[in-house]
Amino acid sequence: MVNYKEVKAEIISIGDELLYGQITDTNSQWISQELDKIGVRVVHRSTIGDNRDSILAAFADAEKRADIILITGGLGPTNDDLTKPLLAEYFGCGIEMVPEALEAVRTFFEKRGRELTELNRFQAHLPTKCNYVPNDLGTAPGMWFEENGKKWMSMPGVPHEMKNLMTQHVIPKIRSLFTLPNIYHKVIKTVGIGESWLADLIKDWENNLPSHIKLAYLPSLGQVKLRLTAFGEDPIDLQNDVENEIEKVKPLIEKYIYGYNKETLEETVGRLLKQKDKKVSLAESCTGGYISHLITSIAGSSDYFQGSMIPYHNTFKNKLLGVENEILETYGAVSEPTIIQMAENIRKKFNADFGLASSGIAGPGGGWAEKPVGTVWIACDFEGKTVTKKLQLTQDRMLNIQLTAVAVLNLLRLSILEKTE
Amino acid sequence: MVNYKEVKAEIISIGDELLYGQITDTNSQWISQELDKIGVRVVHRSTIGDNRDSILAAFADAEKRADIILITGGLGPTNDDLTKPLLAEYFGCGIEMVPEALEAVRTFFEKRGRELTELNRFQAHLPTKCNYVPNDLGTAPGMWFEENGKKWMSMPGVPHEMKNLMTQHVIPKIRSLFTLPNIYHKVIKTVGIGESWLADLIKDWENNLPSHIKLAYLPSLGQVKLRLTAFGEDPIDLQNDVENEIEKVKPLIEKYIYGYNKETLEETVGRLLKQKDKKVSLAESCTGGYISHLITSIAGSSDYFQGSMIPYHNTFKNKLLGVENEILETYGAVSEPTIIQMAENIRKKFNADFGLASSGIAGPGGGWAEKPVGTVWIACDFEGKTVTKKLQLTQDRMLNIQLTAVAVLNLLRLSILEKTE
Repeated sequence: MVNYKEVKAEIISIGDELLYGQITDTNSQWISQELDKIGVRVVHRSTIGDNRDSILAAFADAEKRADIILITGGLGPTNDDLTKPLLAEYFGCGIEMVPEALEAVRTFFEKRGRELTELNRFQAHLPTKCNYVPNDLGTAPGMWFEENGKKWMSMPGVPHEMKNLMTQHVIPKIRSLFTLPNIYHKVIKTVGIGESWLADLIKDWENNLPSHIKLAYLPSLGQVKLRLTAFGEDPIDLQNDVENEIEKVKPLIEKYIYGYNKETLEETVGRLLKQKDKKVSLAESCTGGYISHLITSIAGSSDYFQGSMIPYHNTFKNKLLGVENEILETYGAVSEPTIIQMAENIRKKFNADFGLASSGIAGPGGGWAEKPVGTVWIACDFEGKTVTKKLQLTQDRMLNIQLTAVAVLNLLRLSILEKTE
Repeated sequence: MVNYKEVKAEIISIGDELLYGQITDTNSQWISQELDKIGVRVVHRSTIGDNRDSILAAFADAEKRADIILITGGLGPTNDDLTKPLLAEYFGCGIEMVPEALEAVRTFFEKRGRELTELNRFQAHLPTKCNYVPNDLGTAPGMWFEENGKKWMSMPGVPHEMKNLMTQHVIPKIRSLFTLPNIYHKVIKTVGIGESWLADLIKDWENNLPSHIKLAYLPSLGQVKLRLTAFGEDPIDLQNDVENEIEKVKPLIEKYIYGYNKETLEETVGRLLKQKDKKVSLAESCTGGYISHLITSIAGSSDYFQGSMIPYHNTFKNKLLGVENEILETYGAVSEPTIIQMAENIRKKFNADFGLASSGIAGPGGGWAEKPVGTVWIACDFEGKTVTKKLQLTQDRMLNIQLTAVAVLNLLRLSILEKTE
């Protein structure tokens, strides 16, 4: 195995609005992830204000620590944006107009039918030591420097502009300049099991993982992601090694795995419904439309989503959804008999194959000894057979809504897998 | 006016999982906001890994730049958590068991019925130079140091533990140790007008703001927040000055202001409905349940939210919601005649005062020349009179859903204000 020299990167985010906490710095995390994927190690992230001394000091510190320095922000055309003149100062060079960059700015404004001001023209004036990197999505260009063996890239702070420059230019450039280890990532997405139970089920497999494959548990709301990362020389070998390990772990946790990599639970459910040519409809009470929103946030969901009803009060559970008043009065809205009728009736109303329902006490008010806040019934009806589940969740309203949504989507997923072929 | 010496702070976040981009650093932004509120200036934020040299270097750099150094993370009981031993090393002191801290850890585990392990006991061993700060929500205590005139606080990285330590101990401590300017913030929340139009409407007012009051525009999805910040000596004066300016700007943008400070648009709408004792119901097509979700995410919304229907297909718009087939066939689902019937019928179905409706082409598919992706009709019906609005939004499905939701909630807000007294 080749011994790779570790390639180190530092990220510098510039902007008073970051230091004052007015905006969230999502750029740094995204850049960290992208660098991690190609085997570059981020050793430091700094956030500094629009301040000469801070910026110059950050440049000098970064140069000591890293091979690659990625800078975002401070590139606007106004006076308080200092990154460009300070890069020129730091590298001891002048600033000159770059005709290609001017042409790009001009075209950018023409396309939008807006006038090119003197301030905008200044966007095309760049430090003479930099390589101009066109920014197709905005007016502030990327600037690439190579000095004393270190690589520098300055990018605008607007996330989609920065991401485009990273993907189109920076990542390929880094790959071409450095000998990086090959890396293969795969994420196993699980639902319906807590982190420690999952860890317990797979501990023997985990202990026997080959040393070039690392495992990370990434828990989120009601779900746990397992990320496998293999480092090595041959990309085909790495992929095979990871897939091989996944084949080994799969039988241990089969029913909890719903997808891989970026697939979300609502995408999985949509994919399954499409594959099986089945339709779904929902009666949402305590989740108040959130599950329907998740399902319909997926493009193409009109192929399998029929519609929903949110009968927030008993009157409408009876009048519009046909839940019997006797059931509601005897057992209450948050009960198994009610949830069964909700799921069955909503399926029929919308002529669907699967009828889903949620009814619970989201909180913070409305609970009592027998049915405390966080008590939720969910159900999935298929061909008149209803599977129900009682959840005992938290004191937090939003958390209860989100956890119920995950549980309902998972109930649907399991039902599709069991009930159809 | 007193001349305040600027108090500078630096935030250091420690953890490999941050540098690899595995978790989002929400702590730094939150701390920045809290410090900004009390007039402390954050001059630098650093994110570093669980690495001895990086951590010691970050301590030394921070000490040069700031008066207050706030550290989060790296306090777990396992070996890769280095913050505590390195703080002891940096300040040249030993680590000793603190009985009060041990008692707290013991109680923490007892309450949860879990056993106290050797590793957990080690949480009570602290650098001798620190002041122990109890962490009521976890096992890693806060540690306060005062050395060479600089103040240091080390906190766990778990957000709710850190926030509690900040609010209960760090902020009051900073206030007591430093002479800080008094600061009064107020945020005016607006909807239904873009940033540049808003700026145009209030430019004379803005230009005449007294020098001790600063204005910031904080735009987000379909909304713009105006943040007024006053710095000075007397808190009562500051509040009066800001409120006075707000009274002046109000008449210029009255219809766009929906609330102040943290109030969200869905909270405003809920508050108004409650005040007027009116109920609402929704027929959501292109928004797929998202607006109902926003409304029901507010605790107590069952007082004014009756329920919703999401008839995603024309069949159900007709069969369940009673939109006439002739209307659907002649004008289509995304049309003014359809949206009028949707709003009116949903109001009646749920016996509500206000009936809201959305129907549009969220994308990415489904558009055509006459009705491109992003075409959306919305409506609000009150007593059989329907106000409609056509929106021409973006190519992005999620953005279209979110912008439609803001527009519908604002339409409801304006309708409540106009139609009721």
